[in-house]
Amino acid sequence: MISKIVVLGSGNVAYHLVKALSISNFTILQIFSRNQKTGKELAKLCKSKFTDKISSITKDADAYFFAMNDTANETISSQISISKDKLLLHTAGSLSMNIFKDKTNNYGVFYPFQTFTKNIDCDFSKVPICIEASNTPSLKKIKYIAIQLACKSIEIDEEKRKKLHLAGVFASNFMNHCIYIGENILEKSDIGKELLEPLLKQSFKKTLSVGAKDSQTGPAIRMDHQIIGKHIDLLGEKSTESEIYKIISKSIYKTYNIDNEE
Amino acid sequence: MISKIVVLGSGNVAYHLVKALSISNFTILQIFSRNQKTGKELAKLCKSKFTDKISSITKDADAYFFAMNDTANETISSQISISKDKLLLHTAGSLSMNIFKDKTNNYGVFYPFQTFTKNIDCDFSKVPICIEASNTPSLKKIKYIAIQLACKSIEIDEEKRKKLHLAGVFASNFMNHCIYIGENILEKSDIGKELLEPLLKQSFKKTLSVGAKDSQTGPAIRMDHQIIGKHIDLLGEKSTESEIYKIISKSIYKTYNIDNEE
Repeated sequence: MISKIVVLGSGNVAYHLVKALSISNFTILQIFSRNQKTGKELAKLCKSKFTDKISSITKDADAYFFAMNDTANETISSQISISKDKLLLHTAGSLSMNIFKDKTNNYGVFYPFQTFTKNIDCDFSKVPICIEASNTPSLKKIKYIAIQLACKSIEIDEEKRKKLHLAGVFASNFMNHCIYIGENILEKSDIGKELLEPLLKQSFKKTLSVGAKDSQTGPAIRMDHQIIGKHIDLLGEKSTESEIYKIISKSIYKTYNIDNEE
Repeated sequence: MISKIVVLGSGNVAYHLVKALSISNFTILQIFSRNQKTGKELAKLCKSKFTDKISSITKDADAYFFAMNDTANETISSQISISKDKLLLHTAGSLSMNIFKDKTNNYGVFYPFQTFTKNIDCDFSKVPICIEASNTPSLKKIKYIAIQLACKSIEIDEEKRKKLHLAGVFASNFMNHCIYIGENILEKSDIGKELLEPLLKQSFKKTLSVGAKDSQTGPAIRMDHQIIGKHIDLLGEKSTESEIYKIISKSIYKTYNIDNEE
């Protein structure tokens, strides 16, 4: 089965993947990264070797995890030289597994559906792994890796995986940025950010318990022009924040008032 | 001190305020609401009387809580007939307390900075109350009410309160709507929404522990045109969701790359 692994990449995903693989008794033979600093740090963390040269990537591993950005995953996979029996995997949400099809018959996707930040703990066993494979033996091997990491794996095809990635961008990245804008408004007005905490906690609790649709409150649902006008004035008519304010308010109003409009 | 209270309004804020006042041994004399159905329900809940006529609002209370939308708070406060010694309060984030200045010398703001949804539990004692008052005796009375509800009260002037309200719209309403869009993408693609839960939980945990700025991940920080282009295609170039996608991505990129641009 799979035992020896090379990880390509040294960013947030690579970092947490390497940590999880290491404690699950896989051997990380080598870290490849074009970033010497983060690559060497990650290699040190898992007591493996480091290279930034494609030609020096070891041929001795059972599986190769491509955990870089999409462009790098495509470029490096087209240049790597390994034998046909190896398993090639990438960890990306919106990239086809066919980037590997000219290299080997054994390839697939190992997409951990989570937000990863170095130095912020993540219980990898709680991360759903979205998997896809070129053939049945590869699928078995991918499932084996997930099981060793104590992760739940979900078979999901490329089209659905792309939708999932997109949903994650809204639900995590954009959700988080809206909180950032709120925090930033308070900071610029010299109001303590800790005032937001009870609101955030209750909002999160509601969303997790009844879903986002039934949790919504605020002036946009009823298109309260008096409040919305005051808020746009505070943000400045031409600011990026007021553009965001207007388009999300419009979207919220449409979500809850579609029956009236039809 | 304050004992007998009239609450004007029967929406989400009025509902939770009335519940909190009732269990804190205040007497709700009357609920005024232009909505007979929700008004009568709320009056029943706190065993008080109900009216939808401004002229029938009792003159016997010590304090009157205006917990309607801003337009209604302004209109009804201008029409109410009560003696000058009464305390008039509103619960709004973006409304001046001066709507009461022609009615009495004793007035102020009691703004609970929280998202309220009927039928979803809220521990009112954890809600920060933003307060403002026309004079010292009124301030004392408002603080007394907050103390009886076991709430922390924060004196904050109108300008800062408006900023706080605006920050709350981003951090709660807009944050929640981004999650809704994510949930909706999954629903339309027939992907189980439960897949989002680990991502949401980790995102919330990160935001609460290190703040939103240091929690951000995803394609927008590095302006990954390859992924962003695919996502815009999936959303449809002309959709409201793709407009939201583009403007928030732009805002995220600016937040993390301002040093490079300057």
